[in-house]
Amino acid sequence: MERQAVGQVHVVLVGAGNVATHLGRALQRAGHVVKAVYSRTEASARLLSGELEVPAFTSLEELPEADLYVLSVKDDALSEVVSRLCPGREGSMFVHTAGSVSLSVFANKARQYGVIYPLQTFSRRHEVDFAEVPLFVEASDGESLRTLLGLARSLSRNVVEMDGLSRARMHLSAVFVCNFVNHLYALGEQAMEQCGLSFELLLPLIDETARKVHVLSPRKAQTGPAVRGDESVMARQEAMIDSPVVRQLYRLMSKSIENISR
Amino acid sequence: MERQAVGQVHVVLVGAGNVATHLGRALQRAGHVVKAVYSRTEASARLLSGELEVPAFTSLEELPEADLYVLSVKDDALSEVVSRLCPGREGSMFVHTAGSVSLSVFANKARQYGVIYPLQTFSRRHEVDFAEVPLFVEASDGESLRTLLGLARSLSRNVVEMDGLSRARMHLSAVFVCNFVNHLYALGEQAMEQCGLSFELLLPLIDETARKVHVLSPRKAQTGPAVRGDESVMARQEAMIDSPVVRQLYRLMSKSIENISR
Repeated sequence: MERQAVGQVHVVLVGAGNVATHLGRALQRAGHVVKAVYSRTEASARLLSGELEVPAFTSLEELPEADLYVLSVKDDALSEVVSRLCPGREGSMFVHTAGSVSLSVFANKARQYGVIYPLQTFSRRHEVDFAEVPLFVEASDGESLRTLLGLARSLSRNVVEMDGLSRARMHLSAVFVCNFVNHLYALGEQAMEQCGLSFELLLPLIDETARKVHVLSPRKAQTGPAVRGDESVMARQEAMIDSPVVRQLYRLMSKSIENISR
Repeated sequence: MERQAVGQVHVVLVGAGNVATHLGRALQRAGHVVKAVYSRTEASARLLSGELEVPAFTSLEELPEADLYVLSVKDDALSEVVSRLCPGREGSMFVHTAGSVSLSVFANKARQYGVIYPLQTFSRRHEVDFAEVPLFVEASDGESLRTLLGLARSLSRNVVEMDGLSRARMHLSAVFVCNFVNHLYALGEQAMEQCGLSFELLLPLIDETARKVHVLSPRKAQTGPAVRGDESVMARQEAMIDSPVVRQLYRLMSKSIENISR
């Protein structure tokens, strides 16, 4: 229904990483046309283009015409890709998908542009329900905004307009609740392996910890030695940690829990 | 079925916190008899005893006879409670539920004793499926071990015998994947609130991050600026953080991600 409002969009994917992969699948599933995939390296261009059954390119200049170019490349590379891709394509629209890069990366390079930031962690080999992925949209002008909101709504039930400053702050939050959380899972896995225990024993705890914050504020859900002020447990646990960085992390996390609980 | 093997056990709960609450509910549901609840403070003794419809006590000495006394008190208080509770009750069995306290806290104080450590985060107001909670059991002797394993299996499908050293290491892992993870959720919530955004926007990301490690090792599931080595994003994100402790945490987490990814 929403898709009819925006119509079928012809898209070129610039980048072939995790975000481009999941976005490409979602675009095709929603009935849009992925015309080509670009990647700097032929291998990764071919991996995604093979899956989507579209041509692969390793030269920005040779990319075909499209309604929309979706740039999902490393933040550091974005500015150069924009400079090389946009000239001579004034009839097209351009978006990037980065949380922490401003819309202004396109300024004076393109006429119509925007951002579609998917707030999710994507791994190539793990399927996600894209309809549930929150998409945050920003655009250069009212017409582009309407087009991008329409496109976004054809992919997800959860579309929000958001300016770049809020998006950057949300990306920071995402690093805490996703990237850093996953690293704590990795440290837990390491500690379990060191004593011959399976990481799987921790999964019910991991699930419940995530489930609980759906109904309780994380501040109210906090349990454990640090929030109880259980100094003797904390001293014993610290002494069990071999790595100096991880030990420092233990201390700092405990301190930060005490700070926020006060 | 398993319950028949162990028979109905008459239990006194010593402690009325989150663990005692969920254990008490599970014991009753499994057909065991909770004879009394003890807590140092009358209010918390009454809260749990009222829910379970059993007598409340604030004096250890006055507690009724039971097959089993389950001690779920702060780790720091455990030793004193053992010294006051055990004398004169040689016919009873005693267990504590602490991850990081050795079985030997009961040595020379009781004849038959053990540990039942539930690896889960419990909040009074959030129901959990106790049958899915992994229970780790250790005991003073073979007969006590059989009794406690039987009791544990009447409460949970997921019962494992484990010595105190492994239990302590697992408890440390649990602090990382649960208590510290929840604190990162709290920091994410704080950052969202600071720019007027709802914490709920982060929930699909939180869920997917937890779901992913059921099928991918956390080391393989790692995404984000630190594992990509995206220095410019990290510098900008660090600059957005007001709290010195949280900023230090950001740096240390990023460093630890780089360490483990190498």
